[in-house]
Amino acid sequence: SSAAETIRATLFPGDGIGPEIAESVKQVFKTAEVPIEWEEHYVGDKVDPRTQSFLTWESLESVRRNRVGLKGPMATPIGKGHRSLNLTLRKELNLYANVRPCYSLPGYKTRYDDVNLITIRENTEGEYSGLEHQVVRGVVESLKIITRQASLRVAEYAFHYAKTHGRERVSAIHKANIMQKTDGLFLKCCREVAEKYPEITYEEVVIDNCCMMLVKNPALFDVLVMPNLYGDIISDLCAGLIGGLGLTPSCNIGEGGIALAEAVHGSAPDIAGKNMANPTALLLSSISMLRHLNLHDKADRIQDAILNTIAEGKYRTADLGGTSTTTDFTKAICDHL
Amino acid sequence: SSAAETIRATLFPGDGIGPEIAESVKQVFKTAEVPIEWEEHYVGDKVDPRTQSFLTWESLESVRRNRVGLKGPMATPIGKGHRSLNLTLRKELNLYANVRPCYSLPGYKTRYDDVNLITIRENTEGEYSGLEHQVVRGVVESLKIITRQASLRVAEYAFHYAKTHGRERVSAIHKANIMQKTDGLFLKCCREVAEKYPEITYEEVVIDNCCMMLVKNPALFDVLVMPNLYGDIISDLCAGLIGGLGLTPSCNIGEGGIALAEAVHGSAPDIAGKNMANPTALLLSSISMLRHLNLHDKADRIQDAILNTIAEGKYRTADLGGTSTTTDFTKAICDHL
Ligand SMILES: CC(C)[C@H](C(=O)O)[C@@H](O)C(=O)O
Ligand SMILES: CC(C)[C@H](C(=O)O)[C@@H](O)C(=O)O
Repeated sequence: SSAAETIRATLFPGDGIGPEIAESVKQVFKTAEVPIEWEEHYVGDKVDPRTQSFLTWESLESVRRNRVGLKGPMATPIGKGHRSLNLTLRKELNLYANVRPCYSLPGYKTRYDDVNLITIRENTEGEYSGLEHQVVRGVVESLKIITRQASLRVAEYAFHYAKTHGRERVSAIHKANIMQKTDGLFLKCCREVAEKYPEITYEEVVIDNCCMMLVKNPALFDVLVMPNLYGDIISDLCAGLIGGLGLTPSCNIGEGGIALAEAVHGSAPDIAGKNMANPTALLLSSISMLRHLNLHDKADRIQDAILNTIAEGKYRTADLGGTSTTTDFTKAICDHL
Repeated sequence: SSAAETIRATLFPGDGIGPEIAESVKQVFKTAEVPIEWEEHYVGDKVDPRTQSFLTWESLESVRRNRVGLKGPMATPIGKGHRSLNLTLRKELNLYANVRPCYSLPGYKTRYDDVNLITIRENTEGEYSGLEHQVVRGVVESLKIITRQASLRVAEYAFHYAKTHGRERVSAIHKANIMQKTDGLFLKCCREVAEKYPEITYEEVVIDNCCMMLVKNPALFDVLVMPNLYGDIISDLCAGLIGGLGLTPSCNIGEGGIALAEAVHGSAPDIAGKNMANPTALLLSSISMLRHLNLHDKADRIQDAILNTIAEGKYRTADLGGTSTTTDFTKAICDHL
């Protein structure tokens, strides 16, 4: 393929099992002839004053330039005087929406076989404002900030996503019966956007009730959009329904069309370097990235190969009850391509 | 039984299906010869200025005097100038802990058959402070307040509950990685109390991870204690695991040893007066009340009768897939006594 067709994308292999599962993605992309050239960046070994974290300025510049990237797990080094890697990425790249497709994997049995939903989380404000202080001794407060701008932005993204992905319903999740002003503003923004999408059904669900409904019958939901902390909670709950973070793709959307897909599981230092890690979450995340680039043919082919490999059950990593190595599992996927 | 042995308890039958399910409790208590005399109070038809809600001052005085009560569902009338009935009760009676035992009902099949946990929710502060305001147009904030006093109080209650109910572990649920000051203070208080209970295992679990673990394997948990909103969310999630709010008991603990047990489901106006309501949640809540009064023999007998009736499956109300009326189901329980 000519240079003109090649898309440059940033790759953060990350720590722990990160490099191994990133290798798996590179292998699969190569076999599927995905026209992507990776620009690899690693977490630095000292704090970069320009990012106030162990992320290098160059790596952020790479994502800003390429507008698309894939990220493995990154364990924030312990200590003071620097920011968490994940929060730095969200802040510096203005990653305002976290999108998590969550669907039952055929052949991988959990208590649920009917999950097919998308959680869209506001990723920049709310309970994550970082504004906290002690009022008097023994009394502390945290501020939850909701803005019209960020709420409209994520609501727009959710409805646009629903429309362009053949989804029928958007549910806004809230606790406006208690937080009338903050969650009330969030809902008001969702309603405004909903009016522009008459073909999408819009509903509002209180978060406690939403969690109860999700565990009773997740098929009741389609696309869910919500403020930051509710999104943090509900996206992990949904991941649990289908087997956990090792099987769940995630993609962060930033201002100006940046998309940074990521595996949201941990870096599993205990099994790092042992060729035991399950690359599924990063592989499925890479598919979110391909879809964002409108490379749907490639995305479909790779997704089918992954799902078929898991469904057949012959090659599975230890976390899914199998005995395959990361490389065997990856090879099985490549053989399906 | 002589008057000296009789315990007076306040009964709020509530609205909608409330009076029917309260009747069921009265029937069962009578058959089991529970030495309780009910003092019945209804929600008023106008705002009582002393409570700023439709709850009468007399009804609150009744609970304060008796120190023990049972409450059916109450729908807060719509309109301005008054407070929600549930929030008024919590505030006026200083109901600082909401305790929800949550266990799989033998014979009533859900996706889970191994649930046996207790959620203990701080019920007075946190995200429910009511402190909210607009900072500038399009920017609003809510204050989450955590105090040392309320955190210690609920932590004490949780550990004491664990110890006196033969439980082995208390998990504090938090998001202190983000809200370091507020949730951090909550954890600090839990740790202080944990030191006084060396026989109880203490652990801390981040709320998103907790929700994922709960849906994957609820048997991992025993007693969970947490700030207000997390408790609201997780207690409903847990109710969903075993079939919903219609099967879940709840009890609120107030300063000075007040216990107000309640069914937390809605008042179901659509089926009110039709002899169709399921009284299980209110019945199981009444058992929490009996245990609080140390009437364990009566509690055990009634609990067995309810569980056996449900397990046999011959008499079940419509919400559980049966065709029994409320009175038939109640009679079946009484026959088991
Ligand atoms: C690690 C933590 C700060 C983070 C969050 O709360 O956002 C994580 O739970 C996530 O969902 O990415
Ligand atoms: C109705 C609502 C205000 C209430 C709450 O959020 O506390 C309810 O969800 C509950 O759990 O009792």
